[in-house]
Amino acid sequence: MRQYKKVLLGVASIVLIIVLAACGNIDDSSSSTSSSGKKTTSVQTTGQVSKSEYAGVIKNGHYLTSKARGLTANRNSNSLNITSFENGLLGVSKSYYSTSNYIFQEGQYLTTAKLTNWLGRKSKSNPTGLNPKDNGKKNSSRNPIYVESIEEQDFMQKNGNSLVLKGITIGIAMNTIDYYQKIKYGATYQQTITSKERVAYGKKVAKLIVERMRKIKKIGKNVPITIAMYKQAANDSLVGGSFYAKTQTTSSNISNWEKMNVENKVFPEISSTSDYASNDNKSFENFQSQIENYFPTISDVTAQAKYVNKKITGEQVTITTQFYSETEIISFTNFIAQVAPKFLPSGVPVNITVNSANGIQAFLSRSSTQRNFKSHVFSSY
Amino acid sequence: MRQYKKVLLGVASIVLIIVLAACGNIDDSSSSTSSSGKKTTSVQTTGQVSKSEYAGVIKNGHYLTSKARGLTANRNSNSLNITSFENGLLGVSKSYYSTSNYIFQEGQYLTTAKLTNWLGRKSKSNPTGLNPKDNGKKNSSRNPIYVESIEEQDFMQKNGNSLVLKGITIGIAMNTIDYYQKIKYGATYQQTITSKERVAYGKKVAKLIVERMRKIKKIGKNVPITIAMYKQAANDSLVGGSFYAKTQTTSSNISNWEKMNVENKVFPEISSTSDYASNDNKSFENFQSQIENYFPTISDVTAQAKYVNKKITGEQVTITTQFYSETEIISFTNFIAQVAPKFLPSGVPVNITVNSANGIQAFLSRSSTQRNFKSHVFSSY
Repeated sequence: MRQYKKVLLGVASIVLIIVLAACGNIDDSSSSTSSSGKKTTSVQTTGQVSKSEYAGVIKNGHYLTSKARGLTANRNSNSLNITSFENGLLGVSKSYYSTSNYIFQEGQYLTTAKLTNWLGRKSKSNPTGLNPKDNGKKNSSRNPIYVESIEEQDFMQKNGNSLVLKGITIGIAMNTIDYYQKIKYGATYQQTITSKERVAYGKKVAKLIVERMRKIKKIGKNVPITIAMYKQAANDSLVGGSFYAKTQTTSSNISNWEKMNVENKVFPEISSTSDYASNDNKSFENFQSQIENYFPTISDVTAQAKYVNKKITGEQVTITTQFYSETEIISFTNFIAQVAPKFLPSGVPVNITVNSANGIQAFLSRSSTQRNFKSHVFSSY
Repeated sequence: MRQYKKVLLGVASIVLIIVLAACGNIDDSSSSTSSSGKKTTSVQTTGQVSKSEYAGVIKNGHYLTSKARGLTANRNSNSLNITSFENGLLGVSKSYYSTSNYIFQEGQYLTTAKLTNWLGRKSKSNPTGLNPKDNGKKNSSRNPIYVESIEEQDFMQKNGNSLVLKGITIGIAMNTIDYYQKIKYGATYQQTITSKERVAYGKKVAKLIVERMRKIKKIGKNVPITIAMYKQAANDSLVGGSFYAKTQTTSSNISNWEKMNVENKVFPEISSTSDYASNDNKSFENFQSQIENYFPTISDVTAQAKYVNKKITGEQVTITTQFYSETEIISFTNFIAQVAPKFLPSGVPVNITVNSANGIQAFLSRSSTQRNFKSHVFSSY
């Protein structure tokens, strides 16, 4: 039987000691005063630092961490999937729950114990398993593990002294390839899951999850539940997977799904197929050839580009170089800042990191509304 | 005999292929047109990206790297010294050669061969060695290696089609502790060099270097030569060394030295001696206790603080945490942005990096004139 492990580290639900009251921006409106006159702070929020980010929940003076974060069915998945899944899910949530009206709370209703069972195969000992029964096969006729990871995000509003649950987002990460061993510690085999299978199985799972969540008393029958379906990238991918469907329900049913046309690309593209990303890829290749030759030993210039409805929405460029002197890094960064606006996409956020074996050397970024890049060269005294 | 090695990598003087003409900001005024009508670009500059940074030199279309970069007498020195030395030297240069009037050129007059000899001990086979003869002793009565590293920076101005040398800065890094082996590959012993010895020996060496540079024809008799004396930090130091004296000469003599009162501190201080940094250290410790408790597994919150004339001029904070989810890192970064202005010094630049085993997670910075921190959470698609 597979072992269900926390990925990276899931020391999630530990309660922390922190005196947040010392911080001015912390919203302390929910403090209550007991009859003895002693102030007993119950629920606070972290306050909103920027309009595009949620305030978070502070409970009893500690950041309220998730009840079950980072659980995955397979333990050897691509870590880019985890980042991409978590980050993308927050983006989906923002399209339903505005950052100005809702407070973000790490998932509190699906516990590690519950999710560990859900991500398992259905069996006599695990009746709530969302993955299919083991049919005993060890080849492509086996039942694959479809559901890789489930993540919960809660959205709250204030009501007097307490926070009230006003919405939930559930992300469901589906495998496109299931990696398995025929014998324990043996070679890894791949079982491809077709798009049709994945979408169909995902819909079934989403329905089951909504039904189960409606039975959780504290969630109730009518709180909006948003479901976002994510397809995992292959383990050797240089970019994470992407969300492919979403829906929201205020009942136990899911009436219709909205397709999400999100694709992540890696530049330079290995095979230059001509599609909607071709021009961006060509521009990137021009950028790459300018940058690669500045120093003799730059090993790698790559980018991740994100497309929504076949339009680019952002680019993350990674330049890996060997260690150079401070003056060379400063000069190189200035050079990048000059070249980048000519070749990298405008009107969307672009981040560039310059890394070496010693870690990050420099960072440049441009928001969607800026023309010029802001840069920072990391240094020390 | 010691081996003189290039530190990290000194692939310095390789000529690179880059078509800088494609870049708008590149100043192409120095192109010359030969009689055949073919354009032969000789010298260009990278252009100035910000007022506080120099433009650099592009020669024959390539970034002109140093003739001898990163040479050190000992190969096991603290890499923080290298960063601190190079970065600090540029700061000293800026106080003599303004970024608006001068163009920065990586050192072109002191070659690797020459400097390798200079950093060696004086001997029959190495008459130009700046370190003392080996007296054969293997204890504290031995002649230590005083001079650890020498770095050259050139400052140019345009004259028609060419760049003319208008100033040179020479940084001389002096050991405060000389690390040596009694037998090859044996245990490392330490020989402490007193402040008095170091300063006296440094003055002698500086004089010799100026005399030798005046004999280099291309430098000439009157070009200003700035000398900056640096004392290395110990190998186990968490912060680099500092500059302690500087001078400028337009002849072969050095008439007087100007003391530089620069000290780098590490917070939290291990022994809480009460000196000019005590208050900053206390504030930092308050910051640290706020931050450390936000997540259960934050292992380390430290800072480097730089003092000039006992006044703080900047702080670099490093927070090392384990990997957390995107939402936790966003929330943590927001929290830092709220706490930092209350505890970290104002009116000076402050940088904060949040690192994990997976590399940098977030970066916050505030310039000397800002009240609020700008933040960036590193992510991927």
